[in-house]
Amino acid sequence: MKLSRIIRNGPDGPETRTVAVVPTEEVVVDLRMAERRRLEQSGASVDAAQRVAGALFPGSLSAAIGAGEIFIGHARAAVEERDAEAVVPFPEVRWAPAVDPPLMLDASAFEQHLVNAHARGKRSVPDFFYEVPAYYKMNHLSIYGHDETVPWPGNARFMDYELEFAIVIGSAGADLRPEEAADHIFGITVMNDFSARDVQAREMIAGFGPAKGKDFATALGPWVTTIDELDLANLTMVARVNGEEWSRGSTSTLTWSVHEIIAYASRNEAVVPGEVIGSGTVGGGSGLELYRKLSPRDVIELEVEGVGTLRNSLSEASETRWDPVPKERKAHVTLPDKDG
Amino acid sequence: MKLSRIIRNGPDGPETRTVAVVPTEEVVVDLRMAERRRLEQSGASVDAAQRVAGALFPGSLSAAIGAGEIFIGHARAAVEERDAEAVVPFPEVRWAPAVDPPLMLDASAFEQHLVNAHARGKRSVPDFFYEVPAYYKMNHLSIYGHDETVPWPGNARFMDYELEFAIVIGSAGADLRPEEAADHIFGITVMNDFSARDVQAREMIAGFGPAKGKDFATALGPWVTTIDELDLANLTMVARVNGEEWSRGSTSTLTWSVHEIIAYASRNEAVVPGEVIGSGTVGGGSGLELYRKLSPRDVIELEVEGVGTLRNSLSEASETRWDPVPKERKAHVTLPDKDG
Repeated sequence: MKLSRIIRNGPDGPETRTVAVVPTEEVVVDLRMAERRRLEQSGASVDAAQRVAGALFPGSLSAAIGAGEIFIGHARAAVEERDAEAVVPFPEVRWAPAVDPPLMLDASAFEQHLVNAHARGKRSVPDFFYEVPAYYKMNHLSIYGHDETVPWPGNARFMDYELEFAIVIGSAGADLRPEEAADHIFGITVMNDFSARDVQAREMIAGFGPAKGKDFATALGPWVTTIDELDLANLTMVARVNGEEWSRGSTSTLTWSVHEIIAYASRNEAVVPGEVIGSGTVGGGSGLELYRKLSPRDVIELEVEGVGTLRNSLSEASETRWDPVPKERKAHVTLPDKDG
Repeated sequence: MKLSRIIRNGPDGPETRTVAVVPTEEVVVDLRMAERRRLEQSGASVDAAQRVAGALFPGSLSAAIGAGEIFIGHARAAVEERDAEAVVPFPEVRWAPAVDPPLMLDASAFEQHLVNAHARGKRSVPDFFYEVPAYYKMNHLSIYGHDETVPWPGNARFMDYELEFAIVIGSAGADLRPEEAADHIFGITVMNDFSARDVQAREMIAGFGPAKGKDFATALGPWVTTIDELDLANLTMVARVNGEEWSRGSTSTLTWSVHEIIAYASRNEAVVPGEVIGSGTVGGGSGLELYRKLSPRDVIELEVEGVGTLRNSLSEASETRWDPVPKERKAHVTLPDKDG
């Protein structure tokens, strides 16, 4: 099954709706509407059908996923018995980010990208990346859907894409072992971890991880393909810029398995329904590794076999309204005598 | 006004309730209950009073803050005209994290802590910290309230506290200038950024920022004091471990102002209602700076003048269920010829 979210106008303004996607027919099914009609036809009162359909299919896909089997079971039924009224053809769809993660991490599970990226900085990859499936935390509120225009931050010069697939978590778990992780995967989506390389290079020296270099935008979509439809062993991954192929890779080159990634993410904290964990960039899956930079208005398409193709364009550079004024160094070390 | 959240049992299980806190009387006021009674007495039907009180005072303080003036106005009225039934004395209170941030950052705005912490690693502070009010992203879902026991991760040896105050954002904003930031502050709470120093030291080498070294737990509470009640110029900050004072500092030693911190956090992305942004550790406000380590069952109290005292104890060390098996280095650089 393929699930996503779209924006529709209602009497109270734009509303996010959870949909099932039927790519072969180029349509989406508005699940709340389809379920409401289905319940009515099976004898539910208008009020009850509305109430139950609303609870099963909120605008938040994360919230819907949190209900577990009842969500996916009713989604299947709603699609199978769909009322024509609930069907929206692709050309009329305004896509929202496929999922609204309550938490979003990005692992770095493809060694080839790490080796290339560090080589650009004339460094070798730290041992740490071979010891654990390391990740950084993303801004899960700064997300863009399929066909949305992504803003170009005013202070960025070197804009880049990152070709990734992303795990969508199905159910909560903490301190999982890799062999337990499979039960916690809901599905897979495509992730474009847009990056301002010049900004990122400066801030990563501080050791606090990527922030302004990446948190202006991450794209997720066009939909989530449930894990039962996929074999992650060897999916082709392709990036095209303005129609020209820039990158090609495969999930077969993963250094850390998705099960190891999830187990480590859940260590001493929880993974939660709808959480998104990026795979990291596949080897060669960024302009950084090609000595190529994106330009304003470029159209970037990322394709993951069996999942879908996520397309976004870049805006013109925005204006910067304020720059911090640097501070002077003033403080001196005040550590006590170690033996004192 | 002082606001927080508590856990109460209801017919559907434990429920988080938003409360106003009256420390001088050692009571909290259950705002949803108080508002429901108040609306009923002013002529609202039982159903309407329940519906409106529920919409104004959800269990999520972040969601409540998002409503803006209507929330704080009704909270004041509900407290003033409070029904005795809505009052819970401190000894009966089970505290939840004061706020449930949709996003949580930790700045590092006290130079003294940075200088000391880097000196422990025999390094000087990178220029970056003097150029911008840098921050790292925390796990906003891994939070603990006042009096909650914080877990000791199984793989940690050097456990530490960090004495911080935290800004709670009142309204959304992006690309703010410092002079605009004041309008976006809701209040201040106390933050204990619990840290596993040995874990943190290893992972920060990778450049991806703190993760397992900090994301197992952050404590927030006991409540949020609204900004109108505070002058941040010179608030004393104290940490006590098992009743003994370990740390003492002041907000007067901030290198970056809260307005600069917020402006930078909002750069190219949004700050949102209920978001929490830690100040960073005040100089001397951690065991790292004192050559002292926490032990299992230690009780840590952090006090910020005018805000409150946040108390937490540490558990025994948990068991580790899985350790990643290190990978071999395999990949070689595949960057193209730069002039190719």
